[in-house]
Amino acid sequence: MDSGLALDIATDLTTEIGPRLYGSDDERQAVEWATKRFQEYGFDKIWTESFPVDRGWERGDETAAVTYPSPQKLVITALGGSVATPPEGIEAEIALFKTIGALKSQPAGSLKGKIAVVTQPMGIGQYGKISGPIRGNGPSEAAKRGAVAFLMRSAGTSKNRFAHTGATRYQKDVTRIPAAALSVPDALQLDRLSERFDRMRIKLVLTPKQLGTVTSQNLIAEITGSEKPEEIVLLGAHIDSWDLGTGAIDDGAGVGVVMAASKLIRELPTPPKRTIRVVLFGAEEIGIYGGNFYVENNRTDLDRHIIAAEADAGQGPIHTFNVGVGDPLEPTLSVIRDALKPLGVKPGRAKSRGGPDIAPMANVGVPVAGLDMFTEDYFDLHHTANDTIDQIVPERINQSAAVYVTFAYLASELGGYYRAK
Amino acid sequence: MDSGLALDIATDLTTEIGPRLYGSDDERQAVEWATKRFQEYGFDKIWTESFPVDRGWERGDETAAVTYPSPQKLVITALGGSVATPPEGIEAEIALFKTIGALKSQPAGSLKGKIAVVTQPMGIGQYGKISGPIRGNGPSEAAKRGAVAFLMRSAGTSKNRFAHTGATRYQKDVTRIPAAALSVPDALQLDRLSERFDRMRIKLVLTPKQLGTVTSQNLIAEITGSEKPEEIVLLGAHIDSWDLGTGAIDDGAGVGVVMAASKLIRELPTPPKRTIRVVLFGAEEIGIYGGNFYVENNRTDLDRHIIAAEADAGQGPIHTFNVGVGDPLEPTLSVIRDALKPLGVKPGRAKSRGGPDIAPMANVGVPVAGLDMFTEDYFDLHHTANDTIDQIVPERINQSAAVYVTFAYLASELGGYYRAK
Repeated sequence: MDSGLALDIATDLTTEIGPRLYGSDDERQAVEWATKRFQEYGFDKIWTESFPVDRGWERGDETAAVTYPSPQKLVITALGGSVATPPEGIEAEIALFKTIGALKSQPAGSLKGKIAVVTQPMGIGQYGKISGPIRGNGPSEAAKRGAVAFLMRSAGTSKNRFAHTGATRYQKDVTRIPAAALSVPDALQLDRLSERFDRMRIKLVLTPKQLGTVTSQNLIAEITGSEKPEEIVLLGAHIDSWDLGTGAIDDGAGVGVVMAASKLIRELPTPPKRTIRVVLFGAEEIGIYGGNFYVENNRTDLDRHIIAAEADAGQGPIHTFNVGVGDPLEPTLSVIRDALKPLGVKPGRAKSRGGPDIAPMANVGVPVAGLDMFTEDYFDLHHTANDTIDQIVPERINQSAAVYVTFAYLASELGGYYRAK
Repeated sequence: MDSGLALDIATDLTTEIGPRLYGSDDERQAVEWATKRFQEYGFDKIWTESFPVDRGWERGDETAAVTYPSPQKLVITALGGSVATPPEGIEAEIALFKTIGALKSQPAGSLKGKIAVVTQPMGIGQYGKISGPIRGNGPSEAAKRGAVAFLMRSAGTSKNRFAHTGATRYQKDVTRIPAAALSVPDALQLDRLSERFDRMRIKLVLTPKQLGTVTSQNLIAEITGSEKPEEIVLLGAHIDSWDLGTGAIDDGAGVGVVMAASKLIRELPTPPKRTIRVVLFGAEEIGIYGGNFYVENNRTDLDRHIIAAEADAGQGPIHTFNVGVGDPLEPTLSVIRDALKPLGVKPGRAKSRGGPDIAPMANVGVPVAGLDMFTEDYFDLHHTANDTIDQIVPERINQSAAVYVTFAYLASELGGYYRAK
């Protein structure tokens, strides 16, 4: 709990590299940076596995303003993967909906020539309700009804004026329209304006570039087990980040936590019995490309994965230890549960998919642990320009690293095999 | 305390008009908007007084990025009145100073061709230490030493990634160089980078326009006193705002407070004995133009001003009642002090300049009250894009309005004359 290593690593990564968009030079440099670190830490094996990402993309200019009745600038950001407006922008009347359901109840063609705006709020715990149905499908639902562009209230919980990016995904055979998120106060402003005025016009300029297929990579680093080297305890996090902030909360913190935890184990007088494998996944943000590729590329080895855990929900603290394993009563798990209690971690449910990048392996039977983090302020920050290292509280990330050390060390030392999900 | 009127007014102003930069159409529309309100409230006299502002200015594009060694975007905003860079920007090595003193200790010519960066932090209560010496004079001090541009850490107290604008003022006979503020996390990022790398380069693009002399105006609205109409109790706030946010905290809240307080007095069954004069000052942000013009334009009437107070420090609550009057022992003041106590307002010092727009009248002898607000979070928000109505807490602004009603009503009813400063 006294080690500041996780925060030091996250600070170095977010300072020396900064943002790390999937498929970018920044992401590659982050992988080189982490490779060097693992070498310094004396890890036994370090390698990368590359894969294509068919949705290469780069942010451009992004501005918006109410042009009628009350000219004022709006804080927006393009959704990841959005197409561009013409360089001069789109200026159109808006159709504002308080929920995505209200938009979807409109008949085809009814939004012709308009900018569709959905101001549905996101409460604590409602990320999934917004990210898929609105951020993912909203642009296509609007386009089907004739809209020329799509704006949504950010999938975030803070009233600070930051717009949240995140991947959108156009449906097949639907016109691809430019799509952006409004900051929460800007969405509230449009709600208020819509109550006061019958008509509103907005000008939107988005100039992102589609880069076609780009290359990303997972970085894998191992401490070879002393007794059962073929058995793997996997610790994951993702090295890519959105481009607006420096990716400190999402997921520099997770990278710091798993790198620090594994380094602390590496420094023990006796090495762990099983192999500790750290995987820093690439291209998570645009659709878990790294996590999916890992399963594809390591399929024949998956049965050697004893258990996997991923840190990708911010800085912590970790409050609950869930498992997604064949036998939740396996005695080793009780030892881990007891060891985590003094760190403030409660035993949880016998149900977990572990985290976004390890869910694909959980789906094919790899046992996973869900070291659940406190996330009530995570969605204040993630995917925004405000995701910087200065938002991290040392005590919180320290506890997360301590939990990962404890979990990984005990999982590598004790008991048998959590398989047979 | 139960009236939500102040917040309603501030909400309407910041929604229906939005930002209100000095000398702009927005500022004029805000004055028309407030004029209509005062008419609806049944005020007896409403007029404007116009004046020139010799520093007309309009924000343009503003972007910055570290280009070496670790390319990453920076969140910045032009200081008010800054000159532009060439359209393609300035890209140069930086010279980073942790304090303005460190910059000023450099010899002439030593910053030749460089972008000067001052990352001096602002603590709670240190606004004056930053706004004048760094935001005001920093660009000229850097230019004297050969710098081609100037960046400062924002005059703000939050770690959220918002850059704070605010007026700079070039010294005479010094080259005018482009000047901008970095958000606090960006300044901290440059501090960290400077500890890790010997050299850093930044690209800065600022394209504001100098508009020459523009016109601003004060709006004055009165409830005529029933017994001593010639004696004036003045309540002030400023109607202009910076252009990044919607000017809710600075100073939509103050406008709401003084308009609500005066309207509530207007609705009393018996009118106040003295005249209540509300003044919504123009062009405060660029250098108290409205407050200075008021003194010039109303000089012969200033001795009819019994007392003046201004709300320009956010939403409140108000914690202390200070006075800047000839006789602080005047019995009416005790009555006011006693009446404010149940609202949580402590008696304060016999020293006050009242507020930025009424300081010029205080300086020539007009008695003033200083209804001091809680400002510990004011500098988290003011002059940023995050200065929006959603940051206002109803209970806080309600208390401020209740204090202004109490103060203004008693000052208009009771006792004599606070003059002879």
